[in-house]
Amino acid sequence: MAKTIPYIKNFNEWVNDFSFSTEVKVRFSETDAFGHLNNTNAFVYFEEARIDFFKHLGLMDEWLKEESSTIVVTADLQCNYLRQVFFDEKLSVYVKVNYIGNTSLDIHYLAVNNEGSYCLTGRGAIVQISKFSGKPVPWNEEMLSDLNEKQASLQ
Amino acid sequence: MAKTIPYIKNFNEWVNDFSFSTEVKVRFSETDAFGHLNNTNAFVYFEEARIDFFKHLGLMDEWLKEESSTIVVTADLQCNYLRQVFFDEKLSVYVKVNYIGNTSLDIHYLAVNNEGSYCLTGRGAIVQISKFSGKPVPWNEEMLSDLNEKQASLQ
Amino acid sequence: MAKTIPYIKNFNEWVNDFSFSTEVKVRFSETDAFGHLNNTNAFVYFEEARIDFFKHLGLMDEWLKEESSTIVVTADLQCNYLRQVFFDEKLSVYVKVNYIGNTSLDIHYLAVNNEGSYCLTGRGAIVQISKFSGKPVPWNEEMLSDLNEKQASLQ
Amino acid sequence: MAKTIPYIKNFNEWVNDFSFSTEVKVRFSETDAFGHLNNTNAFVYFEEARIDFFKHLGLMDEWLKEESSTIVVTADLQCNYLRQVFFDEKLSVYVKVNYIGNTSLDIHYLAVNNEGSYCLTGRGAIVQISKFSGKPVPWNEEMLSDLNEKQASLQ
Repeated sequence: MAKTIPYIKNFNEWVNDFSFSTEVKVRFSETDAFGHLNNTNAFVYFEEARIDFFKHLGLMDEWLKEESSTIVVTADLQCNYLRQVFFDEKLSVYVKVNYIGNTSLDIHYLAVNNEGSYCLTGRGAIVQISKFSGKPVPWNEEMLSDLNEKQASLQ
Repeated sequence: MAKTIPYIKNFNEWVNDFSFSTEVKVRFSETDAFGHLNNTNAFVYFEEARIDFFKHLGLMDEWLKEESSTIVVTADLQCNYLRQVFFDEKLSVYVKVNYIGNTSLDIHYLAVNNEGSYCLTGRGAIVQISKFSGKPVPWNEEMLSDLNEKQASLQ
Repeated sequence: MAKTIPYIKNFNEWVNDFSFSTEVKVRFSETDAFGHLNNTNAFVYFEEARIDFFKHLGLMDEWLKEESSTIVVTADLQCNYLRQVFFDEKLSVYVKVNYIGNTSLDIHYLAVNNEGSYCLTGRGAIVQISKFSGKPVPWNEEMLSDLNEKQASLQ
Repeated sequence: MAKTIPYIKNFNEWVNDFSFSTEVKVRFSETDAFGHLNNTNAFVYFEEARIDFFKHLGLMDEWLKEESSTIVVTADLQCNYLRQVFFDEKLSVYVKVNYIGNTSLDIHYLAVNNEGSYCLTGRGAIVQISKFSGKPVPWNEEMLSDLNEKQASLQ
């Protein structure tokens, strides 16, 4: 399965490189008439994990301030569904920054169930944009050093 | 069934008093593992119908303006589930103002499927509050006359 | 505020009567353009708490079995919004059975934030119905004694 | 923008190749505290369009039958967010089959707003699996000829 995922070169290395995770429990309202987790909710879990990660890095507060001139938006997102997920499963949703761009971050995701089975993998770029022009805004020095330092401390 | 719904005195009269409605089609992602519409989505449909109704009355734009000093919030909401609703059903969601308060509106809802069966009834008060203090703000004259006039024209 | 909620006689007594709760953290995807928790998600939280409660009582597994001849559906639901709830707030969502009917349960809800402020109250009846006829099915003796015993042990 | 999307070679050709679409209106409950459509709902719209497309091709009924031995699941999904989408925007969500595999379909998506601006592009594979083993099941001849014929008639 792993070799068919274009954003993962070596699956074991890729897995081992995660350290931050968020716990999620599958709600009944997140299932669908096929009896499993509806595919759209994978991205709800990814967003929850991503935002927890940003909060952990101390970045989220800045972006949520009303006086902030920038917000962070998703440029793209993708998910690979490795196995079906069901009501009441507990998932650890791992997040890491794969690449730091000038105005963007490439973020990777991995959801693992209670039995250690890989359920979902994913990735997506977020971009910092101006609230006013909508155009990309480069990360400032402080944000970059925060990101590098705090990510390092997770390892 | 109707006589057990506390906010409906005479079911036939109550039904006949609606004139505005919004069409909704049940999405697969809105079903759950019991194979029917998840109960929480009744309120998604009510909100969609309520906002369409406010747009129709010309009120929504005002509340969405960034410079507006008020927003409108739900004070309470309730729904009675008369029959199960399934994937791909088309519902007409009717809305009416049942009562105009000083700072609030009591709004009633009725969802009817394609075969004319009553599926959901509901009601709830919305309140106009200050964005800053969070306290209720009385409707102004213009809004009241708009509301009375335009609602009358729906009959 | 409390005196305007029809299903609560004495607010303090009503609050003290809860013992089971579920923890919920407000997701960013559950907010709306007014910057707060969208009203529809109160019912998502109520369902999560209700199902956790049923699981705790050992009832949920029965209803989810494919060979079960009954499911449990919501007959009605209501929520009173006492204060706005925002992104990242942690809520304790309390649940209790207020009344045991022949085929139904009247369930009450209370959501309290981290600072001990009451945010949401609610109630709603669930009904056990036949998967085939859709008609109400009385609780059996085992379920009733389970419910009475285990609820008592929560006090 | 187009050249950065890996699954689109020639953007104009890619756009011109769509013919089937579904209309979606952005609900208030689908926005988030950043004031725009929450990213997770792109996939809700893709699913709605995909299922409408399958219904149009006469395939959906088969998969929803209780006696069906197969269901169709998403193997992967991705979305590129070309521009922010806001409350009340009307989107045409286009769908096409890009590639027919042995047990899978590669499906592409394009969401265009009322002013003709491209908002979202996407793709994802669905796979037919056995309800019992969870393993991929090849399309049968009838389904393949249905798919080829009806898709051709859309052009």
